[in-house]
Amino acid sequence: MSGLIDYQDLLRLTTDILLRGYGYNQKEAGITATLLVEADARGIPSHGVSRLAFYRTNLDMGHCRPGSEPEVVWETPVSLVVDARAGVGCRAAEWCVERTMGLARKTGVAHCAVRNSNHYGIAGYWAELMAKNDMIGTAFTNTYIAGVPTFGSRRLLGTNPIAVAVPERGGRIFLLDMATATVSHGKVELYDRRGKTMPRGWVVDESGEETYDASSFERTFYQTSFGGHLYVGGAGEESGGHKGFGLALLVEILCSGLSMGASSLETYPKGGPGGITHYFSASRMDLFGDPGELKDRVGGILETIRRSEKAGGRDRIFIHGEKEAEAREASLRDGVFLDAATKAYLASLAGRCGLGKTPGLEG
Amino acid sequence: MSGLIDYQDLLRLTTDILLRGYGYNQKEAGITATLLVEADARGIPSHGVSRLAFYRTNLDMGHCRPGSEPEVVWETPVSLVVDARAGVGCRAAEWCVERTMGLARKTGVAHCAVRNSNHYGIAGYWAELMAKNDMIGTAFTNTYIAGVPTFGSRRLLGTNPIAVAVPERGGRIFLLDMATATVSHGKVELYDRRGKTMPRGWVVDESGEETYDASSFERTFYQTSFGGHLYVGGAGEESGGHKGFGLALLVEILCSGLSMGASSLETYPKGGPGGITHYFSASRMDLFGDPGELKDRVGGILETIRRSEKAGGRDRIFIHGEKEAEAREASLRDGVFLDAATKAYLASLAGRCGLGKTPGLEG
Repeated sequence: MSGLIDYQDLLRLTTDILLRGYGYNQKEAGITATLLVEADARGIPSHGVSRLAFYRTNLDMGHCRPGSEPEVVWETPVSLVVDARAGVGCRAAEWCVERTMGLARKTGVAHCAVRNSNHYGIAGYWAELMAKNDMIGTAFTNTYIAGVPTFGSRRLLGTNPIAVAVPERGGRIFLLDMATATVSHGKVELYDRRGKTMPRGWVVDESGEETYDASSFERTFYQTSFGGHLYVGGAGEESGGHKGFGLALLVEILCSGLSMGASSLETYPKGGPGGITHYFSASRMDLFGDPGELKDRVGGILETIRRSEKAGGRDRIFIHGEKEAEAREASLRDGVFLDAATKAYLASLAGRCGLGKTPGLEG
Repeated sequence: MSGLIDYQDLLRLTTDILLRGYGYNQKEAGITATLLVEADARGIPSHGVSRLAFYRTNLDMGHCRPGSEPEVVWETPVSLVVDARAGVGCRAAEWCVERTMGLARKTGVAHCAVRNSNHYGIAGYWAELMAKNDMIGTAFTNTYIAGVPTFGSRRLLGTNPIAVAVPERGGRIFLLDMATATVSHGKVELYDRRGKTMPRGWVVDESGEETYDASSFERTFYQTSFGGHLYVGGAGEESGGHKGFGLALLVEILCSGLSMGASSLETYPKGGPGGITHYFSASRMDLFGDPGELKDRVGGILETIRRSEKAGGRDRIFIHGEKEAEAREASLRDGVFLDAATKAYLASLAGRCGLGKTPGLEG
């Protein structure tokens, strides 16, 4: 049965599972649990505690090596290149973002390219963390191969998300956190399970031709490296598919190129480290003037848009990050929603780790 | 009659028109002519010499004030905020990019937010200029209002282009230069003139409903501030329209927010300065390692994509900037293509300025 579970209870349980069942140390377990629970709390279950299964696979396949500490391999007063040494992705990201912000506190701005890492949860969490510290934060990452270039047929690039956060007045944060792929693979799976026809702009088949048939797409997706996701703008150039592809390529260049790490195509080799690469940057708001005035100005721009006339049948224009911030507030108040499958999966993990009964998971 | 005109002849003519007919000084005329001719040479006629008409209107309406020099209003070792004082946009951009690169040469990285400027030509030129200097260059700008937010009906944001350039091996440059709007308004005008039905994802009508009818769209576009362009991903959220809208909003925040200048909605007030805002950043490649090795790595990533299997009926995957670089090479060799209307317009401008016959414009 699906239901709500207290945020702190879920955080504690997820931490305990990672500590006892995954061999993560305190720091690795704490930050990974935070990233997973935050995703569920914000209404992004694709990146929530159900990802424990993916993190398990990463351990079993030798992609992720808990206890492995990141190492700085290149440094300037405004930049870092880090080798995450196949460590836990969320911990590597935390380590890197802390150091990036540390540099930016001194110099105003810092970049960080990271190689040899693993999945670091929702990109938006890291960009937002910088914005909470009065910085413009960016967090990009490559991923497993998922998408096909414009006019190509082979999967070569990841879903390659972009997250950028800018502080707004009143403690609000503008948070653009988007896969450059049109949709996540989870959405395609959902359409397959429900037997629904996919909308335009999502995927191409093995010949590089756009397809709307989720079940035939799913049948071949794991068998071959041809066919895959499209990037925002869809197929071809007419509706801007080459733009989304360009953004995905930019993410690849900044993450994999600048870190000299694996490209999406090179990630997750059999038995080898995951190889995921990231790129972060932090720029202090006071580079541009008084932060209070700047945040007011950003707030003014966004407020004009919020208040503007709506399309027929619509009652709200959403600013990026608002839906998630509101979902998070509700989750903290009422509990975090988990579907029945995720609850059952958590309960089985807890059992295997010898953890006692967890409030909210029974029944 | 359309035809080819020698690059240097066209550059000289355009410079002379701006000097004699527009009251631009040497520096303003030189860089503006370069931007316009470069756009035609690269196969981007929407931003080519035909823009002289728009630049004329900007003078006549008091939006642009030649001779007005930019002024730094906020400065740190890694950032500048500049008031362009309603000067010529291309000259303001040149002034700012030179100073941004100057800071980056010292510190490694620099940001620049610019307010109170004017149209600065193709954004890609500025990002590319930084990449030619071994820096990762970004150039964003807001514009006149053109686009409608996801679930909105009123035009509030510009076409808000993003340009990012990264140096690749062999002197090549990865150059992503894209309006965040799906297409430029020129494309809609073309569909109207040809009586063609527009593809999905381009525009919405006054009620915020998607429309494919170019001629009915064009009839109302200049009459009201309702209805307008969509951003990459199209209408609604299903195919990622909120992502393109988010990118446009990010451009607005970085340009208008950080410079405390006009938002797209506030640009081009009657009789007032154009008010366009820009954002530039430059990050030296050697922040991340040896530039030669990094450029090799970037080149390797791109080469894998170039060589990958093509979709049915396609023989090439284009890396961003390649089409334009090849068109430029052909234009330098064979001459710059101008259509008949643009040639006639240039000839009439040259006549009005008392300029003699220009090779390539006769007949």
